[in-house]
Amino acid sequence: MLTQNSDLQLVLDLAGVFIFALSGGLVAVSKRLDVVGVIVLAWVAGLGGGVIRDVLIGAVPPDGVTDWRVMSAACVAGVLTFFLHPRLAEISRFVRVLDAGGLSLFAVAGALKALAFAAPPIACVVVGVITAVGGGLMRDVIVGRIPEVLRRELYAVPALLGAVIVVAAAHWHHLTPLVLWLAVAVCFVVRMTAVMFDLNAPRPLRTGDHS
Amino acid sequence: MLTQNSDLQLVLDLAGVFIFALSGGLVAVSKRLDVVGVIVLAWVAGLGGGVIRDVLIGAVPPDGVTDWRVMSAACVAGVLTFFLHPRLAEISRFVRVLDAGGLSLFAVAGALKALAFAAPPIACVVVGVITAVGGGLMRDVIVGRIPEVLRRELYAVPALLGAVIVVAAAHWHHLTPLVLWLAVAVCFVVRMTAVMFDLNAPRPLRTGDHS
Amino acid sequence: MLTQNSDLQLVLDLAGVFIFALSGGLVAVSKRLDVVGVIVLAWVAGLGGGVIRDVLIGAVPPDGVTDWRVMSAACVAGVLTFFLHPRLAEISRFVRVLDAGGLSLFAVAGALKALAFAAPPIACVVVGVITAVGGGLMRDVIVGRIPEVLRRELYAVPALLGAVIVVAAAHWHHLTPLVLWLAVAVCFVVRMTAVMFDLNAPRPLRTGDHS
Repeated sequence: MLTQNSDLQLVLDLAGVFIFALSGGLVAVSKRLDVVGVIVLAWVAGLGGGVIRDVLIGAVPPDGVTDWRVMSAACVAGVLTFFLHPRLAEISRFVRVLDAGGLSLFAVAGALKALAFAAPPIACVVVGVITAVGGGLMRDVIVGRIPEVLRRELYAVPALLGAVIVVAAAHWHHLTPLVLWLAVAVCFVVRMTAVMFDLNAPRPLRTGDHS
Repeated sequence: MLTQNSDLQLVLDLAGVFIFALSGGLVAVSKRLDVVGVIVLAWVAGLGGGVIRDVLIGAVPPDGVTDWRVMSAACVAGVLTFFLHPRLAEISRFVRVLDAGGLSLFAVAGALKALAFAAPPIACVVVGVITAVGGGLMRDVIVGRIPEVLRRELYAVPALLGAVIVVAAAHWHHLTPLVLWLAVAVCFVVRMTAVMFDLNAPRPLRTGDHS
Repeated sequence: MLTQNSDLQLVLDLAGVFIFALSGGLVAVSKRLDVVGVIVLAWVAGLGGGVIRDVLIGAVPPDGVTDWRVMSAACVAGVLTFFLHPRLAEISRFVRVLDAGGLSLFAVAGALKALAFAAPPIACVVVGVITAVGGGLMRDVIVGRIPEVLRRELYAVPALLGAVIVVAAAHWHHLTPLVLWLAVAVCFVVRMTAVMFDLNAPRPLRTGDHS
């Protein structure tokens, strides 16, 4: 059941890495980092979640340091970001959309890989969520931003939904490619709905005591 | 010897997770994060130290992503924090007391688990300290605070005392529940004494060069 | 081939730990942390990269929590830093030089250990770089500085050069002590050249949007 999804998992992984790496590169550009900084932050954002996932489920050395395909995807995304010079005004919004895509792909791919390593169902869900939010969290912490996952109401929740759909489908032996893409879509739509809503109603941040 | 302590270790773990998760939730509230941010930070503060411990001693997947009891404790603490709405003026002090409790429980529970995994004595001590300070350190780094463990003179030291007592007791075959609670108490008393002292004599922070 | 280098690897490791721990201690001093904060940051800077390396290649528990020699090196460096009271004006430049030394030693030692654990060549290179930049990155993130690896053009690149030389030499069965010291020297010279250049031509930092 899982074997037939291995190609699909590679596609999900590569697309998620590429998209998250773009978000990392754009954050680096917005901080005016140089080309190496852009590539390093692309690597962290694109591969960080998967590396944490692999360490947690005992799949070491992690794909993020052994698989030239995902590493190339992250580097290409970093270089692309550096040379495409997007207009700065557009960056903030575009990062959010990319982030939502990476979140959805990684929640599903992370849960899928944990299932393949025979982790308990609840661990597969949590590992899926950590895969999805880990890279973006490290990206933001490294450059000193409050992480997206803490700032926006519906960031971890759509990832949780996506991972739960995958683990439930595996439990009932319906882990088809269609179900996997459905899980990706549900996560993405919920997240983008939240992004749209939040853009109109930003909540005050960092107004409490800064002890 | 260690087997008879497994129930006690669960109690120490659950209490430590709950208390540290409360501290995480309170920090999140003081930063005006929403309910998901509060739960995420409660999870990080409550389970982060134990996850690092399990990764270091090779106990993967870590309890923090597989054991529904500790995960529930962290989530309940997060939700409680969000709805109890403590007065903000009280938060700063209360976080310190909770932190001292979690520190003590985790230093002992961390060293105990490392012993159960047959790690060398010195590693058990270090892992106990890392378990104790890891969650709070990640909590503070993620929201951009200088970590408590760097700000206060006697934060890592009481954890070190607690872990050393446990490992020494194991070495001399006296690892009884009484000794374990004694280790918790020593760590807590030393830490609270330091908190009391520091409250009267705060040292200047961040006055050096901010390179 | 690798066995005869085990003593040399210990020397590289100890020197790298000591030097990086000094850099951690100096950063802590510049932030006016107390003696425990200085030792903790020395530990993080000196042992952090190696701990991440060991977790990634599955060498748990990591040397950084089990080997009293590397832990002693880090603690001694922290205590030395605290008591030597270097003049503050000299710190910023001295940290850079120490950092370059630690970077070179760790890139080589990290790649060497990954080779000894039979990781794939590409993983050995990446693990070498992560070993080299990991400790300094954690040091900077914990005290809220933008990490050196993102700020300076040629920080990760010399580490990459050093690791590639080691892995290439292993591939062609020429992993002699001379080659290892050559790799250290290449990394150090490239890095120091970059430091000299950057001191004369600092680029603007943190001038973008601070979202």
